[in-house]
Amino acid sequence: VHLPEKIAATVEHLSRIPGIGKRTALRYALFLTRRSRDDLHALADSIRGLQEIKKCQKCNLLSDDNMCSICRDPQRLELGIICVVEDIVDCLAIERSGQYRGHYHILGGVLNPLMGIGPQELTIDKLVERIKEENIHTVILAINPSVEGDATCSYIKQVLPDGINIDRIGFGMPMGGHLEHLDALTISKALENRKRM
Amino acid sequence: VHLPEKIAATVEHLSRIPGIGKRTALRYALFLTRRSRDDLHALADSIRGLQEIKKCQKCNLLSDDNMCSICRDPQRLELGIICVVEDIVDCLAIERSGQYRGHYHILGGVLNPLMGIGPQELTIDKLVERIKEENIHTVILAINPSVEGDATCSYIKQVLPDGINIDRIGFGMPMGGHLEHLDALTISKALENRKRM
Repeated sequence: VHLPEKIAATVEHLSRIPGIGKRTALRYALFLTRRSRDDLHALADSIRGLQEIKKCQKCNLLSDDNMCSICRDPQRLELGIICVVEDIVDCLAIERSGQYRGHYHILGGVLNPLMGIGPQELTIDKLVERIKEENIHTVILAINPSVEGDATCSYIKQVLPDGINIDRIGFGMPMGGHLEHLDALTISKALENRKRM
Repeated sequence: VHLPEKIAATVEHLSRIPGIGKRTALRYALFLTRRSRDDLHALADSIRGLQEIKKCQKCNLLSDDNMCSICRDPQRLELGIICVVEDIVDCLAIERSGQYRGHYHILGGVLNPLMGIGPQELTIDKLVERIKEENIHTVILAINPSVEGDATCSYIKQVLPDGINIDRIGFGMPMGGHLEHLDALTISKALENRKRM
C-alpha cells in the first residue's frame, strides 16, 4: 500500500517472471534491500549479461559463444548420433544422468498449431541439414510425451531422410515408482514396453 | 552441467535469495534470456536502485526518503497512537486491512538472545523517545505470537513510561477458520478471549 517506489519497481519487474507473484516478489525485494551494494551490483550485472547470451549455431543450445561447449567438446566420442530435445532444461537433465556422450539438437518447443507453432518455428530444417552434413546414423527423439510431443515425433520421422535410425526415448515405470501411484497411461506403456528377462 | 557462464552467473546470484533454489533460479534465468534488452535493463536497474532505499528516521519503515509516506501523510488522523510491528511486511498487512489510521513503529525483529538480538539491535530506545516527543497515549503491540514475541512485548511494557495504554493485538480464532483445524493454543486463546454477546 505504502510501498517505497524503489521497492515497488523491483516487485513490478520481478513479478513478471512466471512463478513469481507479487507477494513472493516483495519477499525477494525486501531480502535484497538487506544485501550489500556489491551483491546488488553483481546480481544486476548478471541479469544484464543475459542479453549477450547466444544460441549455438549448430545445435541451438543457449551458449556464451556461437558454438556451445558440448558441440566444441572433443571428448564427445559418440559421433553420428543426435539426441533431439525440446528445450535446454531437457538437455541438462540428460547430461545430469551421465548416460549420453553424443550431441544434441534443441528443437525450441513442440508443434502446436493452436499456439501458432508450426515446423518453421522449430529448428527442424536445421536438424535435417545436420543429418546430411554430419554423417548421422541415429536420431534419439527425447521429446516429452504429450499429444503435441507425439505429433512432433511423427512429423520429424516423416521429414528425416530414409536409412536413418530413429528411436524414441523409452516410456515405462520410473525407478523408485509405485504401481499404486502411477497413472493408467504410464502403466499401459510399462506393460507394452515390457522386456523378457 | 554445461550451463553457459552468463546463465550460471545469474543462477548463482539469484539462488542466494532465500526460497530460490538452483533449479528455480535456472528456470527464472532461462525465462529472462527470452526477455528484451529493455526488460533486462529495467529489472537490473530496479535491483541496483534498492541500494538507495532508506529507513524512515521516525518509524524505521523502509522508505524512498528520510521520512516515510505514512509519517508524512497529513490524512493520518488517529494521532497519539503508535502500532508497533516487527517488520515492514506486518505493517503492509495491517495497511491492507484498512482498519488502522495511526502511525507505526518498526522494531526490526524480536528479542532473541540465542541469535544475539538484544534490545540494542531493535528500535526500542527510539520508541521510548517518540512516546515522549509525540504525545502518545496508546501503544498497540502488533507483534506476532511466539516465545520471542511474547518476551519482546513484556520487555517493551517494562521500559515504556507509566500512564501509557499498552494493548496487545487480540488472539483467537481466525475468520473463516474451523475449530477442527485449529491448534490447541489458538483454541485456548479463543476461549480465554471470549466476548459476552
